[in-house]
Amino acid sequence: MSQQFVLINGAIVPKESATIGITDLSIQRGFGIFDFFKTIAGEPVLLEDHLDRLYDSAKEMMISLPFTRESLKGSIRDLMQKNLLPDSGIRITVTGGYSADGYSAASPNVLVTQSMFKYNKELFDKGCRLVTYEHQRQLPMVKTIDYLQAIRLQGYIKEKQADDVLYLGKSGVAECPRCNFFMVNRQNELLTPKHNVLYGITRKQLLKMEGFDIIERNIEPEELLEIKEAFITSTTKMILPVLAINGIRIGEGKPGPITKDCWRQLLLQQGLE
Amino acid sequence: MSQQFVLINGAIVPKESATIGITDLSIQRGFGIFDFFKTIAGEPVLLEDHLDRLYDSAKEMMISLPFTRESLKGSIRDLMQKNLLPDSGIRITVTGGYSADGYSAASPNVLVTQSMFKYNKELFDKGCRLVTYEHQRQLPMVKTIDYLQAIRLQGYIKEKQADDVLYLGKSGVAECPRCNFFMVNRQNELLTPKHNVLYGITRKQLLKMEGFDIIERNIEPEELLEIKEAFITSTTKMILPVLAINGIRIGEGKPGPITKDCWRQLLLQQGLE
Repeated sequence: MSQQFVLINGAIVPKESATIGITDLSIQRGFGIFDFFKTIAGEPVLLEDHLDRLYDSAKEMMISLPFTRESLKGSIRDLMQKNLLPDSGIRITVTGGYSADGYSAASPNVLVTQSMFKYNKELFDKGCRLVTYEHQRQLPMVKTIDYLQAIRLQGYIKEKQADDVLYLGKSGVAECPRCNFFMVNRQNELLTPKHNVLYGITRKQLLKMEGFDIIERNIEPEELLEIKEAFITSTTKMILPVLAINGIRIGEGKPGPITKDCWRQLLLQQGLE
Repeated sequence: MSQQFVLINGAIVPKESATIGITDLSIQRGFGIFDFFKTIAGEPVLLEDHLDRLYDSAKEMMISLPFTRESLKGSIRDLMQKNLLPDSGIRITVTGGYSADGYSAASPNVLVTQSMFKYNKELFDKGCRLVTYEHQRQLPMVKTIDYLQAIRLQGYIKEKQADDVLYLGKSGVAECPRCNFFMVNRQNELLTPKHNVLYGITRKQLLKMEGFDIIERNIEPEELLEIKEAFITSTTKMILPVLAINGIRIGEGKPGPITKDCWRQLLLQQGLE
């Protein structure tokens, strides 16, 4: 593979030698935000939505981004031209910066990394299994770098023979660490949690899609026992059917009809079908 | 000032060139733990207590430290001999390590940094002012690097003309981001929150001190209105009197007698008086 590059504060550097000083507040205090978008055939997907959220996250964390949106987009284009990865995932991370005393907010460091990524439709039929865990993410609407619980629970997820964890939070059923959650109940209502979750860009696209009457509301954990279908959404997973929760099979243990409909329409909208 | 050094995975490197790769899980996912102890006249203070807690934190986060306790202590001694800072603060940070996919737990990176630090008794009389904020730290008993809220609230604290924030959590009055909280009520009881806080090493030392009958229990936020004295504790602050909470002066607005007694005894125990 040819050498890959990343951006550190606007400068293009080889990926292997990309480092930051250990006084950065991400390392010292877990302080940072990020966003992540796809490129398909060299075109960023929903870039403006992702940048909107990045700037919202920055505002909420009192971080002033040292680049205008246009110059950030310009450097991302430069990076894409250098890396020549038409199908990729691009992550923009904004950390708290180099703090003299290891605590006071400083001028942020902005890291942009690009990795090969191509959505694989075959994953849809395999689906995934979830295990629930009581945890409310702090600052749930902000895309911070905080995945302490998610990383800590990796062993637990494996032990429970699941693929990911579904958090039960302050407003009931919430989200997976990197995905939003949707379910179809016995009344054939398509539901997704309304409060105390990260508002995903794929979730947003689904909520806007015609032909689906998605209800945003609190979902009680007991409602998970009355599920006909369920799926999770994210930029990389698109729509991934949930085939079991806490070891209990959902429906026939394969993707349901509403899940399939949503998926097909999403593929169409992103030019993947 | 002569050049200072840090340890990165057991190797001594100059502080200015101390970096880690951007794939480390602290930068990508805010995943890491740490501990911090003082040295006075070249002697580590309560090192075993701090190492006990570091290993407990690692265990809770499913991190296997790549060094035995003895070899970690050996490298710290080497660093101290190199830096020649008899009065200092030493921080051991253990991050999630370089993760190939930016998410799966990896072999940790261990960073040890040393900075000049000498406790200044004159700070005691100045005391501090706190402002309360509703927030429950996740995994409160683990010393993780997560200070997202603390850094985010720095502007808020200033705006409220306070010096630090006092979290109100799941069990009521909790702690400051880097300090434990103690108060004396109208019945002259010396209280400190029992649950859902980090168990500080200074807190632990105070609880063991003879002559003080400290009660560990939940403290309701309303009890803050009935305070005769209050103070916060930490490795660097020792005991710092709280002279106001939410703009309301406590007692005479100067350190109270029980606070002074605790402080003097702590100074004696740490050989500072």
